[in-house]
Amino acid sequence: MSARPDGRTPRQLRPIEIIQDYTKWAEGSVLCCFGDTKVLCNATVEERVPGWMRDQGTGWVTGEYEMLPRATDRRSQREARQGRVGGRTHEISRLLGRSLRAAIDLKRLGERSITLDCDVIQADGGTRTASITGAWVAMALAVRRLQKQGIIGRDVITRQVAAVSLGVLDGEVWLDLDYAEDQKADTDLNLVMVDGGGIVEIQGTAEGVPFTRPELTEILDIGAEGIQTLMQHQRDALAGSDR
Amino acid sequence: MSARPDGRTPRQLRPIEIIQDYTKWAEGSVLCCFGDTKVLCNATVEERVPGWMRDQGTGWVTGEYEMLPRATDRRSQREARQGRVGGRTHEISRLLGRSLRAAIDLKRLGERSITLDCDVIQADGGTRTASITGAWVAMALAVRRLQKQGIIGRDVITRQVAAVSLGVLDGEVWLDLDYAEDQKADTDLNLVMVDGGGIVEIQGTAEGVPFTRPELTEILDIGAEGIQTLMQHQRDALAGSDR
Amino acid sequence: MSARPDGRTPRQLRPIEIIQDYTKWAEGSVLCCFGDTKVLCNATVEERVPGWMRDQGTGWVTGEYEMLPRATDRRSQREARQGRVGGRTHEISRLLGRSLRAAIDLKRLGERSITLDCDVIQADGGTRTASITGAWVAMALAVRRLQKQGIIGRDVITRQVAAVSLGVLDGEVWLDLDYAEDQKADTDLNLVMVDGGGIVEIQGTAEGVPFTRPELTEILDIGAEGIQTLMQHQRDALAGSDR
Amino acid sequence: MSARPDGRTPRQLRPIEIIQDYTKWAEGSVLCCFGDTKVLCNATVEERVPGWMRDQGTGWVTGEYEMLPRATDRRSQREARQGRVGGRTHEISRLLGRSLRAAIDLKRLGERSITLDCDVIQADGGTRTASITGAWVAMALAVRRLQKQGIIGRDVITRQVAAVSLGVLDGEVWLDLDYAEDQKADTDLNLVMVDGGGIVEIQGTAEGVPFTRPELTEILDIGAEGIQTLMQHQRDALAGSDR
Amino acid sequence: MSARPDGRTPRQLRPIEIIQDYTKWAEGSVLCCFGDTKVLCNATVEERVPGWMRDQGTGWVTGEYEMLPRATDRRSQREARQGRVGGRTHEISRLLGRSLRAAIDLKRLGERSITLDCDVIQADGGTRTASITGAWVAMALAVRRLQKQGIIGRDVITRQVAAVSLGVLDGEVWLDLDYAEDQKADTDLNLVMVDGGGIVEIQGTAEGVPFTRPELTEILDIGAEGIQTLMQHQRDALAGSDR
Amino acid sequence: MSARPDGRTPRQLRPIEIIQDYTKWAEGSVLCCFGDTKVLCNATVEERVPGWMRDQGTGWVTGEYEMLPRATDRRSQREARQGRVGGRTHEISRLLGRSLRAAIDLKRLGERSITLDCDVIQADGGTRTASITGAWVAMALAVRRLQKQGIIGRDVITRQVAAVSLGVLDGEVWLDLDYAEDQKADTDLNLVMVDGGGIVEIQGTAEGVPFTRPELTEILDIGAEGIQTLMQHQRDALAGSDR
Repeated sequence: MSARPDGRTPRQLRPIEIIQDYTKWAEGSVLCCFGDTKVLCNATVEERVPGWMRDQGTGWVTGEYEMLPRATDRRSQREARQGRVGGRTHEISRLLGRSLRAAIDLKRLGERSITLDCDVIQADGGTRTASITGAWVAMALAVRRLQKQGIIGRDVITRQVAAVSLGVLDGEVWLDLDYAEDQKADTDLNLVMVDGGGIVEIQGTAEGVPFTRPELTEILDIGAEGIQTLMQHQRDALAGSDR
Repeated sequence: MSARPDGRTPRQLRPIEIIQDYTKWAEGSVLCCFGDTKVLCNATVEERVPGWMRDQGTGWVTGEYEMLPRATDRRSQREARQGRVGGRTHEISRLLGRSLRAAIDLKRLGERSITLDCDVIQADGGTRTASITGAWVAMALAVRRLQKQGIIGRDVITRQVAAVSLGVLDGEVWLDLDYAEDQKADTDLNLVMVDGGGIVEIQGTAEGVPFTRPELTEILDIGAEGIQTLMQHQRDALAGSDR
Repeated sequence: MSARPDGRTPRQLRPIEIIQDYTKWAEGSVLCCFGDTKVLCNATVEERVPGWMRDQGTGWVTGEYEMLPRATDRRSQREARQGRVGGRTHEISRLLGRSLRAAIDLKRLGERSITLDCDVIQADGGTRTASITGAWVAMALAVRRLQKQGIIGRDVITRQVAAVSLGVLDGEVWLDLDYAEDQKADTDLNLVMVDGGGIVEIQGTAEGVPFTRPELTEILDIGAEGIQTLMQHQRDALAGSDR
Repeated sequence: MSARPDGRTPRQLRPIEIIQDYTKWAEGSVLCCFGDTKVLCNATVEERVPGWMRDQGTGWVTGEYEMLPRATDRRSQREARQGRVGGRTHEISRLLGRSLRAAIDLKRLGERSITLDCDVIQADGGTRTASITGAWVAMALAVRRLQKQGIIGRDVITRQVAAVSLGVLDGEVWLDLDYAEDQKADTDLNLVMVDGGGIVEIQGTAEGVPFTRPELTEILDIGAEGIQTLMQHQRDALAGSDR
Repeated sequence: MSARPDGRTPRQLRPIEIIQDYTKWAEGSVLCCFGDTKVLCNATVEERVPGWMRDQGTGWVTGEYEMLPRATDRRSQREARQGRVGGRTHEISRLLGRSLRAAIDLKRLGERSITLDCDVIQADGGTRTASITGAWVAMALAVRRLQKQGIIGRDVITRQVAAVSLGVLDGEVWLDLDYAEDQKADTDLNLVMVDGGGIVEIQGTAEGVPFTRPELTEILDIGAEGIQTLMQHQRDALAGSDR
Repeated sequence: MSARPDGRTPRQLRPIEIIQDYTKWAEGSVLCCFGDTKVLCNATVEERVPGWMRDQGTGWVTGEYEMLPRATDRRSQREARQGRVGGRTHEISRLLGRSLRAAIDLKRLGERSITLDCDVIQADGGTRTASITGAWVAMALAVRRLQKQGIIGRDVITRQVAAVSLGVLDGEVWLDLDYAEDQKADTDLNLVMVDGGGIVEIQGTAEGVPFTRPELTEILDIGAEGIQTLMQHQRDALAGSDR
C-alpha cells in the first residue's frame, strides 16, 4: 500500500478552511480552502428570475465557475479572450447549480434568484468540490441576510450540501485528491451529498482501468465520511459570521 | 408498484436496433435506435492528431454530439445560429470521447484520429446512452476497415463499451427511460460499462429527492444487466456489416 | 457527346424518393432523396412571428439549411464549433426561405410561422434543390395538419414549388448533377419553379468558361421538364401520408 | 406603361462615374457611382495565398463587401458589433469573388492574392452590381501596377467583367433599379457578364409574382446592352488613371 | 532642431478641410480631412434611447469609430470577420462619445439619441482627432435640422469641441502628427478642448522616454493654439452648409 | 472646502497594502490594496513571444485586466458569457501593458514574455491604478526569480512605475478617489509616472465641467507626491518577499 505524497492517510481530508465575509459587496461571501485549493464563493441575490420562470412565484439558483488564468501551474488563456465559455467550465457551472438547488426550497425563496460565483484563486485539485462546499455557505449567509431583513421567512435552506473528490490509485481509494494525486489516479469521482446521507450527484470517470463494484462501494463509504467532516466546517463558518 | 406507461417491466430495455452502414461516406456509420430515440453515429478517420499530441506516436479519439433542431417535441434553436456550443452539448460530447477512449488502444491506433459524430435525428430520452452505444459500433467498423486495408494491426479495439440510463421513480428503479419517464424521475443516472463488468463512467443526478445507497446498489445491478443485452446488439450489428 | 458516368441521359433525373412522416415530432417531416443525396426536411409551426412582423396579421416562412459533418466525403467542422454560420449555409438558407414563401399565402397563414429545417444526412450534389423540393412537401403536410385541426382555412398553399440543378459540361447540358459531375461542370445553375411554369429563382454561376445565351435557353428547357417530374413525386408523397 | 420616377427610359442606366485613384494606399482604388449609389472599391495585393492553396504556383482573388452603417436611409448596426458577418454580406462577398475570378488568369498571377474591398459609402440600389463593376477596374489598376514593376507578365487580366441589376414591374423590364424602384419590383435580377457576351452569373428572384420565360428573355437582352455601356465606362476609367 | 519631413513648422497644422453634406441619408454628414487623413463623419438621429436611459426625459450621444480595411498602408482584417470589435476601436469609440457629450445639453435634446459614425476612408495619423473634430460638425448639422423642423428648441449644442494630436520628438513638440511622424515620436498625446479653453480629454502616452512637466506645458500651449484654428474650420463648415 | 467622506485630506492616499507572494504558482504574485480596492496581480513568464515578434531577440510584456462579477456593488455579467471582452476591459488592459513596458528593458529580457494578470477581487475606485502599481511589484518579483535562476542578467527592470487617480470636485483636487468620490467628481484623471518624475501616461476626462489649466497643474503636483508614497510601498513589498 503506497503512502500519499503529503503523508495523509487514505481517508484524510486536507486542511479545510472556510473564511466567511471574505469580500464586502456580495450578500454572502466565503473563501473556501481545501489545502492549497482556494475558491472565492460569492452569492448574489437579485429580485428577478430568468424569463422562462417569470410569474410562477418561484425562485432560481444558478452557479458560475471560472478559473483565474494563473490559478494553475501553467497560465491558461482567459475564456473571455477566446470568446466562449469552455466545455469544462460549463460542465462544472451546471453541476454547481444543480447541487445548490438540492439544498433550497425555491417556492419559499420567492420570485428572486441567487447566483453563486465560484472563482478559483488558486487550484490544487478538487476545485469543483471546494466550490460546491463553499457556495453552500455563501448561499446560507445570503439567505440569512434576507431573513434578517424580513424579506423571506424560515426554512428556505432545506438541507446542507457538501462535496468531495475521490480517486482510485493502484486499487486503493484516496479521499480529497490534490492535483499531483489526481494526475496519477485511475479513477476520478466527485460525490455530492446532503446531510442525512442522501446522494445528490455522483460523477465517476475511469481515466485508465475501469473501476469495479467493490471499489465503488469503498469510494462511497470513504466519501460519506469525508463529507460529514466538511459539513462540520460549514456549520462552524456559518456560526462565525456576524453578518 | 407503478406500471411503466408503455407496459415495460422495470428491467426491460426499449426495442433496440443498430442499423449498420447507414450512410455511405463515413468510415463507420450506424443508426442506433433505443425505441423512438434515433442517433446517427458516424466515425471519421483522419491521418492527423490535434497539435498538442503530435509526434508522440499515439492516436486520439474524440466525440461530437448535437441534436437536430426538431429532434424534440419543441423546436430548439441551432447552436451555430447562437454562435456557441451549449453547455449540455459540450458535456455530452466530452462524455462520449472519454467513453470511447476506454475501448481503444491509442498506441496501436497510431498517429491518427477517429471522430465520432453523434447527431440525434429523433429524441425520446436516452440520447447520450444511445450515442455511446452506437458510436462504439461505428468506431469498431472504422477500425475493421483500416485493418482490412492493412493500415493498422490487431487488437486496436480493446474492450466493448455500452451505456444505459436509469431512473428512480417513487423508490422504484427503471431501466432505459423514455422522455416522459425521464421528466417524472427523481433521479437520472447514466452508466457506461465495459464487457467484463468494469465501470467507465457513472453520472447520477437527483433532480428532486436525493437517492440512497440501497437505491444506488439496485441501479447498478439493473444497469449492468441491461448493458449485457446492449452489447449483444452491438456484436450482432458488427457481424451483420459487410464493409 | 460524352456519356454520363452513371449511364443517365442528359435530361434524366436520378432516382427520386420522398419518404413522408420520417420523424415523429415535426408537424411535417420528409426525407427527400435525389439519388444518394438525402435531406431530412422538417416543418415546425409556431404560434408567433419575428418581432419586426408582429401585429400585422400575417405569417412568416423561413428556412434553415445545414450539413451534418460527415454528410460528405471529407468531414467538415461543425459550424457551431466555429461559432458562426458559414457563408454558403446562410446563402442556401435564404434561398430556401424565399422559395417556400413563393408557395404560400402569408395572410391566410395568419400570425404564425413555419420553419423549414433541411439537414443534409448524406450529400452527393444537389443538396439545395433536394432541400427545396422536400421542404415544400413538409410545409404542405404541416399546413394540412393545421387545416385538419381547424386552425387555418383553405388555399393557404397557393403554388407547388420544386427545384433542380443543371450543369454545362463541354457544351452539353446535364440535369440534376451528382457531386462528381458538379465538380467537372463549367456552369452550375439552380432553378426553382412553380407549377404553371413561372420561375421563382434562377442562380447560375460559370465556374470556368462563361455560358452563352443558347446554352441558357437549353438549360431552361431541360430544367422545366425535370421540375415537372419532381412535382409529380411531391404530389405522390403528399397523397401517401396519412397524417 | 408606367414612367420611371426619375424620368429614365426602361433601358437607361443612371449616370455612371468611376473615379480612379480615389484613395492613396491601395494598389488599385476607385469610387464607383451608379447614380446616388457610391462604392469605394480597393484592390490589395499580398504576396501570399490562403493556406489551402499554398505551393501550387497559382494565385487567388477574393472579395469583401460591407455597407457603412449610415449608407442607407435608416442606420443599420455594424456587423463587427453584432459579432458576425450577416447572411446578405456573405452572399454578396462570395458573388464578388466569383465574378472577379472569371476575369483573371490565376496561374499567371502567380502565388499572390488580390483582395477586393467594396465598402458602400452611400446606397441607393444596385450596390452589388456597382461593386463588381468598380472592383474590376480596381483589380485591373492593381495588376497594371504589378506589371509596371515587372513582378508579373502580360495577359493576367483575361476578360472584362461588369454587372447590372434589372427588375420586372407590372410586366415591364427596367434596367439599373434605384432603391425606390427595387422596393416595388416583382422580380429582382442581377446579371454579371464578360466582354463578348458570355454570362458569368445570373441571380434572379421573384419577390411576388414568378417571372415568365419571355420576361427573362427581355431581361437578358436589356441587361446585355446596359453592360456594354458600363464596360465603356470601365475602359475610360482605366485610361484616365496615371498610376 | 530637426525640420518636419513635409516642411511644416512645429506649431503648424496640416491642410484642414471639412466638406459638409458629404452623403445624403445621414441627418448630418461631413468628410473631415487633416492632410491625407480622411474620415467620414455621419450623425444619425433616432427617436429612442438605450434601455437603461428610458423614461428619464434625457437624450444620449454615442460614437462608433472604424477603419476601412485598406485605409492604411497594409490591409487590416475586417473586425466583423474576426467576430469582435478590437480594443483600439472600442477605446476610440468611447473617447468619441465622451467628447461629443461634453458639447451638448442632453436634457434639451430630449429622449432621442444621436450616433456619430466615424469611418476612416484614408488614414495618415490623427484619425481619432479628425473624427472628433468632424463629428462635432456632423452633430451640429443634425441638431440644426431638428431645430428647423421644430422638433427641438435652442441651445442644445452648448459648446464647440475639437481635438488635435501632439508628439514629442527629440525634446521638440510637434502639432498634428502624420503617420510617419507618429511612428518616430517618443510621446503621443491627444487633446480634446472646448471653446473657452477648458480641457475635456487629455490622453498622453510615452512610447519610449517618459515626458517631463515642462514638455507637457509646451504640449498644452501648442495644442490649445491648434484647436483654435480647427474651431474656425468647424464654424466655416457649418456656415457653408445649406441643409 | 468640502471634507472627504472618510475624513481624508485632499492629498491623502487610502491605506495602501501590497501583500507579496499571495498565490503560489505565478512567478510573481501580489495582492495590491488601495483601501477597499483589492487586485490580485500575477506575473507569468513564458519562454515565447507573440508571432509578430519572433526571432528578434527581444521580449514582450502584456497585461490583462478583469473584474470578478461580484467585485462591485451590483453583479456584472462575466465577459466570457457575453462572448467578448468589453471596451473598458480592453482599454485598461492596454494601458496596463504600455505602463509596464515603460519599466523594463525588453532586449535584456530576451525572447520571452511576461503577462501581468490583474483580477479585481473587490472594487472601490482606482482599480486600474492599483493594478498598475501592484503589477510592477509582481513583474519585479518574477524578474528577480529569473535572475536568481541565472536565466537573465542585471538591469532588466529599468524604472519603477506606479499610478494614482485624481479627481476635481467643486474646484478642489482630491487624490486616490474611492468609488463614492469617483461618482461625484467632475474630472477623473489617471496618472502613471516613473521614479525621477517622468510621466508615462496621463488620461484625464471631464465628466461634467471641462477642467482648466490651473486645475491640471494642481492635479500633477498632488499626483506626483502621491506616487512617491506608492513607490515606497512597492519597494517595501519587494524587500519583504523571500522568493
